[in-house]
Amino acid sequence: MTANLQPLPPTIAWRGGPDGHLELLDQTQLPHRYHVLELGDLEGVIDAIRRLSVRGAPAIGVAAAYGMVLGVRRAAPMANALVETARLVGAKLTAARPTAVNLAWAVDRMVQAAIARPALPDLLREAQAIHAEDEASCLRMGEFGCDLIGAGDTVLTHCNTGRLATAGDGTALAVLFAAWRKGTRFSVLADETRPLLQGARLTALELAAAGIPVEVIADGAAAGLIARRQVSLAIVGADRIATNGDFANKVGTYAVALACAAHGVPFYVAAPASTFDPQLDDGRHIPIEERDATEITAFAGKPVVAAGIGARNPAFDVTPAGLVKAFVTDHGLLRPPFGPAIKQMLRSGR
Amino acid sequence: MTANLQPLPPTIAWRGGPDGHLELLDQTQLPHRYHVLELGDLEGVIDAIRRLSVRGAPAIGVAAAYGMVLGVRRAAPMANALVETARLVGAKLTAARPTAVNLAWAVDRMVQAAIARPALPDLLREAQAIHAEDEASCLRMGEFGCDLIGAGDTVLTHCNTGRLATAGDGTALAVLFAAWRKGTRFSVLADETRPLLQGARLTALELAAAGIPVEVIADGAAAGLIARRQVSLAIVGADRIATNGDFANKVGTYAVALACAAHGVPFYVAAPASTFDPQLDDGRHIPIEERDATEITAFAGKPVVAAGIGARNPAFDVTPAGLVKAFVTDHGLLRPPFGPAIKQMLRSGR
Repeated sequence: MTANLQPLPPTIAWRGGPDGHLELLDQTQLPHRYHVLELGDLEGVIDAIRRLSVRGAPAIGVAAAYGMVLGVRRAAPMANALVETARLVGAKLTAARPTAVNLAWAVDRMVQAAIARPALPDLLREAQAIHAEDEASCLRMGEFGCDLIGAGDTVLTHCNTGRLATAGDGTALAVLFAAWRKGTRFSVLADETRPLLQGARLTALELAAAGIPVEVIADGAAAGLIARRQVSLAIVGADRIATNGDFANKVGTYAVALACAAHGVPFYVAAPASTFDPQLDDGRHIPIEERDATEITAFAGKPVVAAGIGARNPAFDVTPAGLVKAFVTDHGLLRPPFGPAIKQMLRSGR
Repeated sequence: MTANLQPLPPTIAWRGGPDGHLELLDQTQLPHRYHVLELGDLEGVIDAIRRLSVRGAPAIGVAAAYGMVLGVRRAAPMANALVETARLVGAKLTAARPTAVNLAWAVDRMVQAAIARPALPDLLREAQAIHAEDEASCLRMGEFGCDLIGAGDTVLTHCNTGRLATAGDGTALAVLFAAWRKGTRFSVLADETRPLLQGARLTALELAAAGIPVEVIADGAAAGLIARRQVSLAIVGADRIATNGDFANKVGTYAVALACAAHGVPFYVAAPASTFDPQLDDGRHIPIEERDATEITAFAGKPVVAAGIGARNPAFDVTPAGLVKAFVTDHGLLRPPFGPAIKQMLRSGR
């Protein structure tokens, strides 16, 4: 079956000049409704990040950069006040979601830009540069990674790492889009990705829209299918990568990596340099966001457990570097031992 | 939070004599509605098994035994016709769900009873004996397994293996109920168990009703919590166990077993002798039921993927014996090497 799908609006777009506004495609309403949020203030951007109207580590970074413009715009036009405001606005944005490092990375870059050139038009140009660099970075990941996909492969992926997770083609999905454009024909198994079903709602939509055959599976089905030789390779994204290669990604990723390791199936991670955290030696200290229990106990507003029963809802897990065959980055493929390769990439100009 | 829960009606009950009817609690409507199906013919029982109104390997076996009574009741009262009808009815029941071996086991026992004493009252007595033996078997599993649970433990379980999965206290949950009755205090993490959420809907309900602290988690969250030392042990049920100890259980079980093995967390399986398949040397040839894609692509009638996108939906997976620390059976604990222990148990009178 082929889905008959309308083209998606842009994930993130800035409309107008420094007095313009930010448009975000509201991903909580996908795949049913293509609704674009028009945001003119900081609070709207923070709310959109918290509610996952915009999600995916690189996309959150780009949205936060524009959020800095909106937050700083209210400040007095004096240079000192602008820098001070940028710091305050940045702290609020960074607190919206703790795990993805791209958010803190984009905020920090905007604060540095404010210090260097404390004027709103320059801040907007910096946000637009971050946006354009993310698009270019996605294309580079696609180029560097596309030969990992072979003709006839069945590729397993988890969560959403495509055009809806970045300002460009994606991270892991950028690799698939590039392979498909090159003429390689393969199919995809998309983990539905509980609790918020980003795989079922978003990844399946993006792949089907590009004409790539995709089937959705329950997250728990991946290990059995891997054991039955139904998966050629797995490729996922990341929200934060330590300098030894341990990485955090959407909860459920670690189980996929363990099953791949048990059956000799290659497991790849695609992420731009901005997802690597130079401050972090290993995965033990990555903060894991705990989200609201109602994401588990209810579905679309309807309760699925008896009243009064609670849930734990960690949004991410950490996969040790030893389970990763290679990282696909915008600076090239990194192969083990990852420590030296990652440090060299970060030195060479992230 | 403590759930304030009404007592559940019996999972399975026969009302009246040989001209009576079967009552099944409709588990598809739990936890919201306690609706009892009153079934007077074979077709109703087959439909209830297919739709998962009754589910859990031992409960399916007991329901099928009563289904044999209802199916045979229509036959002519001559002995030969009754045995022949029992065979035909049994074949229809066995085809309803392919993975759980208890179904075929109960049907076979009813056919043997029909051959020995071809009269409807005797068939009903045999079904009632299977029912009573399942209740007793659950209590024995509880007794044999309860010392595996320690004070302060956090126990992980997957799917539902309690009073709703058997005619008695359950398999894995029978162990927890017995430990709790003995005074051991622990808490439970229940995998929600996609796609049909038996963990969220049924296991959480049963444990909360018994006063045992329980929190629901996404299936994908188990591995990360195990890695973070949040789980003391895991215990699950089984739908079919080969004579080497490989076993099939609800999809998602294998990922839990892999994560336990990676972190040295004990992984136990509780099942009565009737779940062991003496015909099966290892797990490779266990038939894996593929259920309808709409269990994945829609939720409570509402689509979650874009129209035209499909899904794969294996209902079970196979976990190799090497990941199991012990089997809790109604004949005692079986420890590795499992092959000799299983064969001896099956010889000694299953």
